Amino acid sequence: MASRYFFVTLFALVISQAFGSDPSQLQDFCVAEMNPQVFVNGVVCKNPNAVTANDFFFPGLDKAGNTNNNLGGLVPPHYHPRATEILVVIEGTHEVVFVSSTNNQLFKKILNKGDVYVFPQGLIHFQFNRGWTNAVAFSGLSSQNPGVVFVANAIFGSNPPISDDVLAKAFRLDKKTIDRLQAQFTSGN
Amino acid sequence: MASRYFFVTLFALVISQAFGSDPSQLQDFCVAEMNPQVFVNGVVCKNPNAVTANDFFFPGLDKAGNTNNNLGGLVPPHYHPRATEILVVIEGTHEVVFVSSTNNQLFKKILNKGDVYVFPQGLIHFQFNRGWTNAVAFSGLSSQNPGVVFVANAIFGSNPPISDDVLAKAFRLDKKTIDRLQAQFTSGN
Amino acid sequence: MASRYFFVTLFALVISQAFGSDPSQLQDFCVAEMNPQVFVNGVVCKNPNAVTANDFFFPGLDKAGNTNNNLGGLVPPHYHPRATEILVVIEGTHEVVFVSSTNNQLFKKILNKGDVYVFPQGLIHFQFNRGWTNAVAFSGLSSQNPGVVFVANAIFGSNPPISDDVLAKAFRLDKKTIDRLQAQFTSGN
Amino acid sequence: MASRYFFVTLFALVISQAFGSDPSQLQDFCVAEMNPQVFVNGVVCKNPNAVTANDFFFPGLDKAGNTNNNLGGLVPPHYHPRATEILVVIEGTHEVVFVSSTNNQLFKKILNKGDVYVFPQGLIHFQFNRGWTNAVAFSGLSSQNPGVVFVANAIFGSNPPISDDVLAKAFRLDKKTIDRLQAQFTSGN
Amino acid sequence: MASRYFFVTLFALVISQAFGSDPSQLQDFCVAEMNPQVFVNGVVCKNPNAVTANDFFFPGLDKAGNTNNNLGGLVPPHYHPRATEILVVIEGTHEVVFVSSTNNQLFKKILNKGDVYVFPQGLIHFQFNRGWTNAVAFSGLSSQNPGVVFVANAIFGSNPPISDDVLAKAFRLDKKTIDRLQAQFTSGN
Amino acid sequence: MASRYFFVTLFALVISQAFGSDPSQLQDFCVAEMNPQVFVNGVVCKNPNAVTANDFFFPGLDKAGNTNNNLGGLVPPHYHPRATEILVVIEGTHEVVFVSSTNNQLFKKILNKGDVYVFPQGLIHFQFNRGWTNAVAFSGLSSQNPGVVFVANAIFGSNPPISDDVLAKAFRLDKKTIDRLQAQFTSGN
Repeated sequence: MASRYFFVTLFALVISQAFGSDPSQLQDFCVAEMNPQVFVNGVVCKNPNAVTANDFFFPGLDKAGNTNNNLGGLVPPHYHPRATEILVVIEGTHEVVFVSSTNNQLFKKILNKGDVYVFPQGLIHFQFNRGWTNAVAFSGLSSQNPGVVFVANAIFGSNPPISDDVLAKAFRLDKKTIDRLQAQFTSGN
Repeated sequence: MASRYFFVTLFALVISQAFGSDPSQLQDFCVAEMNPQVFVNGVVCKNPNAVTANDFFFPGLDKAGNTNNNLGGLVPPHYHPRATEILVVIEGTHEVVFVSSTNNQLFKKILNKGDVYVFPQGLIHFQFNRGWTNAVAFSGLSSQNPGVVFVANAIFGSNPPISDDVLAKAFRLDKKTIDRLQAQFTSGN
Repeated sequence: MASRYFFVTLFALVISQAFGSDPSQLQDFCVAEMNPQVFVNGVVCKNPNAVTANDFFFPGLDKAGNTNNNLGGLVPPHYHPRATEILVVIEGTHEVVFVSSTNNQLFKKILNKGDVYVFPQGLIHFQFNRGWTNAVAFSGLSSQNPGVVFVANAIFGSNPPISDDVLAKAFRLDKKTIDRLQAQFTSGN
Repeated sequence: MASRYFFVTLFALVISQAFGSDPSQLQDFCVAEMNPQVFVNGVVCKNPNAVTANDFFFPGLDKAGNTNNNLGGLVPPHYHPRATEILVVIEGTHEVVFVSSTNNQLFKKILNKGDVYVFPQGLIHFQFNRGWTNAVAFSGLSSQNPGVVFVANAIFGSNPPISDDVLAKAFRLDKKTIDRLQAQFTSGN
Repeated sequence: MASRYFFVTLFALVISQAFGSDPSQLQDFCVAEMNPQVFVNGVVCKNPNAVTANDFFFPGLDKAGNTNNNLGGLVPPHYHPRATEILVVIEGTHEVVFVSSTNNQLFKKILNKGDVYVFPQGLIHFQFNRGWTNAVAFSGLSSQNPGVVFVANAIFGSNPPISDDVLAKAFRLDKKTIDRLQAQFTSGN
Repeated sequence: MASRYFFVTLFALVISQAFGSDPSQLQDFCVAEMNPQVFVNGVVCKNPNAVTANDFFFPGLDKAGNTNNNLGGLVPPHYHPRATEILVVIEGTHEVVFVSSTNNQLFKKILNKGDVYVFPQGLIHFQFNRGWTNAVAFSGLSSQNPGVVFVANAIFGSNPPISDDVLAKAFRLDKKTIDRLQAQFTSGN
């Protein structure tokens, strides 16, 4: 069995390239200038006179992403600080889960081909391949720059690391376990 | 040959059901109350205590839409007054075109499987099946209520109709042609 | 009879010069820098220390605009992708019409001196001089850069042109008529 | 000489009735429900099915306003907490002035027929009839509910009144003068 | 030693009661109606005619909060999905840390009386009492409803729980440890 | 007796340095670039790669501000055009007052240690030390650039000055008194 997740990160990139619609648009379009000399909240735009149809185009979502990792069909718990996500299942059986910020209520669904699900902005969620085939889905994110925080990586793999006494207390684990987790998540193993 | 377009309207419905993200979210989620007693700018929300996982779920995007119409593989020129659209091609060869509001500049691209394209908010665009197979794509729209104005229908099929002397002058057609168009677009033929 | 429309474009220019209020203002004012070195969503501002009272001033709305065109008292069907318009009649008898995006419902009114009308953002509308005198009105637009799409020009006069097979199908006209319209709208005749 | 100012308040009313565009519009239009049962930030909307062309219409800007007051051609210093104002002069000679919040810099201009001026949101401004004829202008305000604070009335005519020891200290006037001003502004004399 | 944190939750409550400023204000104020019959994005407002000075008032920030918990001077890792936080230290020595969403970069500072720190919206952060006295701070949050997600509680204490096979894989812990953590965080021990 | 007000201006500075949250954030943070070469609505950001923990840090709120002025414990009537203010009392007895824009209704409260009060955006307000000790409070403002207009200074101390005939009429004072006030407020005495 080779359970997999494709495209999640890739697709965010597409939107971030050409959407520019978080605040109201004040012109027909703002194509991101990729080498800005000036930094603003969001992207600086390319000169509109230099924009062509290719700036609205992104190929390759029919190519499988690289699934050579040790997660085995799990997009682990994460959240997008600046975007709601909408997911369409292309193939496979997906468990989708998010947890609300009110009483940590969990919302869960099993999705199959043609099913759509929404993960509200800022809430922790994950997708898990619960079937025996590849799992493929497209994700749309409602921001030019949604951001992504993988919870385990932010907590145990930050640079520099969080003090292990803080993490031991917060996660009710002994320091030795914390140190082992920090070593693993920091090295990217 | 049976060229077709699927899902465009359908998908907009999904987003309109559960997105609620045009203005910043002021709570975890706002699921649209479908029978509101009060009208506001946008949707009134369901009582959050009555929300379940099904409110974030929409099935059926694997079912072909009804293409039994006389447009023959064309989603005719239209615009969304309140949303940018992002389109992912699942199958077929699509001509995608939009016209900017500055000098009526036309942006055009031929898309195939796995290609993505963006139509900026408020600009007239269309998709046309340029191949010999079905054309299938998913569209995401950046608003809970994107709206759609099909140009020919709004101009020639409004209710009540626009005076034919106005349309004859604006479109440089004789009144008889205008009357024929109005009859066709009004009846939905 | 010389029916005319004045000022519509002119007035939009004024607002675009000094308003800067689409998103919330984050400073007292943002006067548009007319030769920007950097492009953002909206305008870059002049150095506030160089701003004078003249930056908030625009003269000449008492001068008649140029009405030497072949439209004969019609501001033809168009929409503003980024602004609601409010119109005050100064002189003459004006037919004002807009079409909603819901069922193409038409809203129509005859206006005389002192009457005010509102065209909602993104909806197709037109003004027509229904009287025997000049028709003069002031229009305010709710954006620094409202944009304007004249429907017939965007459809038949884009650069490069839309394929005539698409337009013939969408507008239910034969290709010969489409070609004649494209020739006329492209040349600006 | 009968110097006068017309329409300023009147025109704000028009916009407040039908604009509804401060935040992005999430539907074609939101016509204010005048007898709301529920209060939200801004207006509750009429049921869209009950909206007619008259909801976008406001007559009577050709009728002179009532100028029977003791201000003699002055719209005294005031500001709009939620709107930028754009003013078009129809008749007369107007002194227009605003004061920025940075170093209290004053911006001043004399306007005549056809001149336009902009007062930025939240800054104190006034208009004064500097000529020997009526002064007439139209004002557009960039909010459904711009608000207006006439400075002298808010300071000396609040209900209940501000303590006279505070005002004496803040305005460097003796308490007796403060008491006289409070009596005048409170009674509306 | 009794290290403690006060007021964080309490202060959020104050802002949520009367701020109403996430989107632009469309009226002088919107005081939250605490028993709404209708749900919108954010709060429904009290009838403005019923608003008094007490609606803008909140007492008691001089009273120590209840610190009778098992966290021992730690506000454990959490984030606010809808608000940036600004913190002013009143007493004690505070370690403040947040982790960015770009490469999990950690930003850390030791704060003492009179120091101010900012935690950007949506980023995981914590405060830890690094001294031998009480630690007291005031926190302001930039939303009427900032939300708070305590990471360990959302992950290990959701209701219903996340499958232990998912958590074991995501956090690289054995299922037995996961089960123990879930038991602890769910019971609130 | 030495009644005093501390920190109001100081604290606004802190927020203006690092908040950047008036519109939705489109990235983790935008730290203000203090020597911008380009001007936009709001601040230009520092290169995110150059940001350190110190950019989120501001010390010194435990130091008393300079109260060597002639206002004697009064923060005189003023308003913030772009921010709501929330105030926490640290020490002393404070009279807090604001005046609404609807009928100039006055809202007043006496605050003591631990009390919180909110001044809505754009409304005239003041704080007065009504006790016999120092009065200390922290103020948070909901904008990166709230702005402040001290009413008496804007009216009587603008540069250049407002014509004394306008002020005499608006404030019902004789020109001699107006001239005296203008001399005082202009010189900063």
